[in-house]
Amino acid sequence: VEAGDGAALRALCADRHEIDIADILEMLDQDERPLFVALLGEDFDYAVLTEVDDTVREQIIEALPNEAVAEGVRDLESDDAVYILEDLEAEDQAEILARMPAVERAVLRRSLDFPEDSAGRRMQTDLIAVPPFWTVGRTIDYMRESEDLPDEFYEIIVVDEQFKPVGTVALNRLLRTKRPIPIETIMDPDVQSIRADLDQEEAARVFERYNLVSAAVVDDHDRLVGVLMFDDIVDVIQEEAEEDIRGLAGVGDEEISDTVAYTARSRFTWLFVNLATAILASGVIALFDATLQQMVALAILMPIVASMGGNAGTQTMTVAVRSLATRELAGYNIRRFATRELMVGLINGVLFAVIIGVVAATWFTNVQLGAVIAAAMIVNLFCAGLFGIAIPVGLDKMGIDPAIASTVFLTTVTDVVGFFAFLGLATVLLM
Amino acid sequence: VEAGDGAALRALCADRHEIDIADILEMLDQDERPLFVALLGEDFDYAVLTEVDDTVREQIIEALPNEAVAEGVRDLESDDAVYILEDLEAEDQAEILARMPAVERAVLRRSLDFPEDSAGRRMQTDLIAVPPFWTVGRTIDYMRESEDLPDEFYEIIVVDEQFKPVGTVALNRLLRTKRPIPIETIMDPDVQSIRADLDQEEAARVFERYNLVSAAVVDDHDRLVGVLMFDDIVDVIQEEAEEDIRGLAGVGDEEISDTVAYTARSRFTWLFVNLATAILASGVIALFDATLQQMVALAILMPIVASMGGNAGTQTMTVAVRSLATRELAGYNIRRFATRELMVGLINGVLFAVIIGVVAATWFTNVQLGAVIAAAMIVNLFCAGLFGIAIPVGLDKMGIDPAIASTVFLTTVTDVVGFFAFLGLATVLLM
Repeated sequence: VEAGDGAALRALCADRHEIDIADILEMLDQDERPLFVALLGEDFDYAVLTEVDDTVREQIIEALPNEAVAEGVRDLESDDAVYILEDLEAEDQAEILARMPAVERAVLRRSLDFPEDSAGRRMQTDLIAVPPFWTVGRTIDYMRESEDLPDEFYEIIVVDEQFKPVGTVALNRLLRTKRPIPIETIMDPDVQSIRADLDQEEAARVFERYNLVSAAVVDDHDRLVGVLMFDDIVDVIQEEAEEDIRGLAGVGDEEISDTVAYTARSRFTWLFVNLATAILASGVIALFDATLQQMVALAILMPIVASMGGNAGTQTMTVAVRSLATRELAGYNIRRFATRELMVGLINGVLFAVIIGVVAATWFTNVQLGAVIAAAMIVNLFCAGLFGIAIPVGLDKMGIDPAIASTVFLTTVTDVVGFFAFLGLATVLLM
Repeated sequence: VEAGDGAALRALCADRHEIDIADILEMLDQDERPLFVALLGEDFDYAVLTEVDDTVREQIIEALPNEAVAEGVRDLESDDAVYILEDLEAEDQAEILARMPAVERAVLRRSLDFPEDSAGRRMQTDLIAVPPFWTVGRTIDYMRESEDLPDEFYEIIVVDEQFKPVGTVALNRLLRTKRPIPIETIMDPDVQSIRADLDQEEAARVFERYNLVSAAVVDDHDRLVGVLMFDDIVDVIQEEAEEDIRGLAGVGDEEISDTVAYTARSRFTWLFVNLATAILASGVIALFDATLQQMVALAILMPIVASMGGNAGTQTMTVAVRSLATRELAGYNIRRFATRELMVGLINGVLFAVIIGVVAATWFTNVQLGAVIAAAMIVNLFCAGLFGIAIPVGLDKMGIDPAIASTVFLTTVTDVVGFFAFLGLATVLLM
């Protein structure tokens, strides 16, 4: 394919959906990708670049001349153009913008001025807004005559003289209404406007909550500046859940197409923090070296207590982290949730205490040893429940994303408590 | 509120969005919830029940008389009605269906006949389908005159004589086209039909991939039977990511409103499996009890090797599980991904080997001990990378959801390899 046969490539891509071309791009080797785009020339649809991994996109854009990018980005919807431009270096971004027509440049600049990951960055600026006194007929005629309409839209926004949204009209409503009826009478006055500087995750929450297909985006003065579409929000929802999964496992924002060096570096930090906490836990064990020397069974059994605590704590913590993220867990039900988790910790603590107590007592024919590990198990599973809530809720209150930092703190607690309870009780009761 | 004042309650709920009423329902105590619904009587919108947690919904429906449910469900869109009915016991479901008018009953029966979690269960059966030879004008008139239209729709489906979908027309396209134009000439012939028995997660993938707002659902004979809407799919995407997070942490499909007994029971299984693997790991340690007896430093350091392996493996596994779920990882790039992960495992293995080697040698003033733990660290982090991919990919090939079972297998491997490598090397080299 990469023998430089542009015509064959054009024929291949002509009828394909942008996502299919994105897949082809990702399958190619690094240096073939810009070549692929260059070969397609004007026939390359830059919307494809919104569908590839971030690293692939950045690499392609960097390899292409800025003028080609400016040319390609100009034809896109404003939200796609912003998506491609926002991660570029300031210098390249400025040069590309400078090569664009003034109107488009101004629109993109305004979107790029909103904070990263805000609704303003994701919004589309092509939209249809009409005053409430227009009739259905006039609105339809206006839509038929306008050249510069967005490719896809599902509702129109009704605005007052100050360009503030006062209602929305779903297109099906518009289609089913007779021409002379004024827009005012059919509009839904219950507008869920979204502030342009709102975080995209919060915006996604509004969409999900009210099952919106699109939403008006307004500036600080409540004036309409753009519209958010459901498909951008689907990506945000997906990304957000993804971030939580990755955060809990200590993986950064890496992608499957990242290099070895980048991946190794990004995971190093988390493992390094984990090493520090593991050494701390070892320090706790070292406190009891005399006890361990006398009774090797303790060394054999101690990882069980720590591991059970870690797992039980992770269960509680995971539910807490996700419920906080989706706002299902909030001030009013934290007490109820905490009570449940502590009860669960206690119940499972007692059950597993019995099981491991019997196993240990039989294995080492030592009933006291069984009693000690049983007691340590109850203590650790109760603490696991307690800290499984306290850590994410506490981090959330401090404004730190609980998904990212909870795991480290939790395993430190369950290791330290597990080893300390087990070896401490053993020292007091068995020595 | 629950003093039985129906009128006050009605006034309170009159203007509120269904999701807000759902929130109120969830905040109430268990026994107050059916009372709340009963007090509202006919003014209670059953669509609210699609927004509450599963357990809350089931509990309310069970407490209400079947005839009230039949009455309430009848007014819903078909997908909402199916959502409420599908989890009921067969007997209640049959009775409620029997109380409904024949047409609605037939429609709901057909949807319920599709497998659980299939596109057929989530689809809406109210839809607009027109033949390709109709003009835009006739289509619009038809929509104006029909009484039984869905509340919300964003495109109409074009079908041939056999009711097979041959195209779609976005409403904005319809609005912008002059009345005498035939539908045929403005329809998009590229229909992404979804088979009714397709799993909802696969259907969600199609939506996401092509940024669809709705999609035609067809039966085995390719005939149109319903339409899937983006908002149902948003829920599916959310649920699916949620399932993976929970699966990795060993939490079942529990919800924040579940009882203590239910939660404790659902988490017990996972902890029990974990206990078994922890005991297995202890068995490995027990092989080396003579070595441990002679050198207590080994007992102090051994959790570090196991813990680092577990964490590094979890990083790889998490990326693998999510990439498999989103189909980013598939046959063609598994080799590339595996190579990267093994290289990352090796690089970080060497780095952490140096760090922990120096720490251990200094702490116990024993250079050989440092060398032993360093070697064990390299072995374990490499194995963590290897099994971090091999386990989820293998489970996926066997048709088992990798999110649910991977963690247990992985921690077993990293514990066993960690303890065996460290204590084994110590026995050979230090004794």
